[in-house]
Amino acid sequence: MLNVNLINKELKQVNNLIKKDIIKERTVSKLYKYIFRSSGKQLRAKLSLISSSSDKKIRLRRYKLAAVIELLHTATLVHDDVVDESEIRRGTKSVNNIWSNAHGVLIGDYIYSKAFMLMVELGNPKILDELSKATNDISKGELIQLDAIKNTKITLEKLEDISYFKTGRLFEASAKCGAILARSSNSYQRNITNCSKNLGVAFQIKDDLLDYSSDEAIIGKPILQDIREGKVTYPFYFAYKKASLEEKKYLESKLGDKKQNNKKIIELITNLGGIKETENLAIKYFMKSKQAASKIENKNIREEMLNLLNVSIHRKK
Amino acid sequence: MLNVNLINKELKQVNNLIKKDIIKERTVSKLYKYIFRSSGKQLRAKLSLISSSSDKKIRLRRYKLAAVIELLHTATLVHDDVVDESEIRRGTKSVNNIWSNAHGVLIGDYIYSKAFMLMVELGNPKILDELSKATNDISKGELIQLDAIKNTKITLEKLEDISYFKTGRLFEASAKCGAILARSSNSYQRNITNCSKNLGVAFQIKDDLLDYSSDEAIIGKPILQDIREGKVTYPFYFAYKKASLEEKKYLESKLGDKKQNNKKIIELITNLGGIKETENLAIKYFMKSKQAASKIENKNIREEMLNLLNVSIHRKK
Repeated sequence: MLNVNLINKELKQVNNLIKKDIIKERTVSKLYKYIFRSSGKQLRAKLSLISSSSDKKIRLRRYKLAAVIELLHTATLVHDDVVDESEIRRGTKSVNNIWSNAHGVLIGDYIYSKAFMLMVELGNPKILDELSKATNDISKGELIQLDAIKNTKITLEKLEDISYFKTGRLFEASAKCGAILARSSNSYQRNITNCSKNLGVAFQIKDDLLDYSSDEAIIGKPILQDIREGKVTYPFYFAYKKASLEEKKYLESKLGDKKQNNKKIIELITNLGGIKETENLAIKYFMKSKQAASKIENKNIREEMLNLLNVSIHRKK
Repeated sequence: MLNVNLINKELKQVNNLIKKDIIKERTVSKLYKYIFRSSGKQLRAKLSLISSSSDKKIRLRRYKLAAVIELLHTATLVHDDVVDESEIRRGTKSVNNIWSNAHGVLIGDYIYSKAFMLMVELGNPKILDELSKATNDISKGELIQLDAIKNTKITLEKLEDISYFKTGRLFEASAKCGAILARSSNSYQRNITNCSKNLGVAFQIKDDLLDYSSDEAIIGKPILQDIREGKVTYPFYFAYKKASLEEKKYLESKLGDKKQNNKKIIELITNLGGIKETENLAIKYFMKSKQAASKIENKNIREEMLNLLNVSIHRKK
């Protein structure tokens, strides 16, 4: 039976596969080991494992696909840290912080191309097609996000595009490729892909929301990073729309300001409805995701997806 | 008949194919157009066109392969400029210089994944295998090169590894994939691959040599960039080996020194035989390349390769 424990056991196999990459070159191996010494939530890898779980005969291929997805995701994170000049990733120092931007860019490229190598080994043209397009869309999303910096004129539609491209897209591809690998029916593929895509967007909205969370201790990383980097995300967007001229000026002055008065800005954004509206938007996408999940005929997979959804809605970090 | 004019005509088709990428997103399209507004020597794309030229029926597929290779190469250049903090590329400002490191990293990723998308369209598993491995090797080479920074203990073998991975490898893959695409004989594939690989290494050695050229006006970019970035390349390596203790100290002090006395350092490195020894090494690889070229049975292709070799040996920039 499919359950959380089984998926976690499978994830161990996936991580072993990722770590099995033995590189003689000292610099490469040192960086690679540092990056994969611990793992995050691995939601995308989980999605591909769940989505492909109906076919018991393709265990190794499923692990390989999940490894590919984890590698792709990790490569984007390593590059993101260079892009955002982040010093912390998953509670410890980022590659660009310990080594340099150069190391971050190049080991990111190494991991990307490693993912493509494994993908080619899978030898499935549909999976290659989907994942190369998804990777392209992710970089597109990140590039569009650069437009959102200090841009108070950004539209809600653009913000939703960014969330889809940078997060929803790989959630979608993970589930879709899992379904392709397991040679599932078209309707199953449609439902699980749709479910995952909306889950990804909801996940990103929740992420933007957590950055405005009032309790740093719980989420385990500094809050208000987005506003410090000058990024307009949903809470800011919704608050700004309702703000008076004076409040607008204050909000604008905070974009890119590295020294924030956390309490004051969170209070203002909350009072202007920025948190509530963002929560509503997250719920909208979670509901869309849930609706698609409920159409999945395979009971185990349906329950696993609903479980994943619940965990994601209620996550505090 | 295959000749330089024909290849240049074909390159225009390749460039059209690259530029045809229509992107609605303003930021993406602005960066993409800037990067592809002009082209470099496009040697790698040429190699793939020459290598596949025996098969007249696959014109569009040949252009697509050449476009893939040009995209892959361009992505590495854009990332290299971030890595080296270069301000100039092909005579004009680099992406990281005009926009930011963030833009350089992300548009590089965009171009990489665009290359993979086109590669998947070609639908040839052997080409996918070769190009994903080559891309991985390139990043490996760049990472090993970070070890060469301010490292006077680096071995000649390591320097040759770097030249192979970062330059020879894509030359090799370009020719090999061209041969695969044209379904050429094994012996042809071996010869043209071997020829191109050694040409690539020779090309890189020549590049390192040109950085120590005494005439900045001719090569059209600032010289001594490598030593300014602290990179130990061949001329420095050979000179250092022959240097007295005092000269060694002087040479060490110049690694990473942004304000070089060009004349003095070039004089010392020349006097210690650094230039001569590097020239000899370049000739060694050119000869290896020529030997492999001479084994190519197809007269047109053989002559085209020998021509390319000659141009590369005698290039002044």
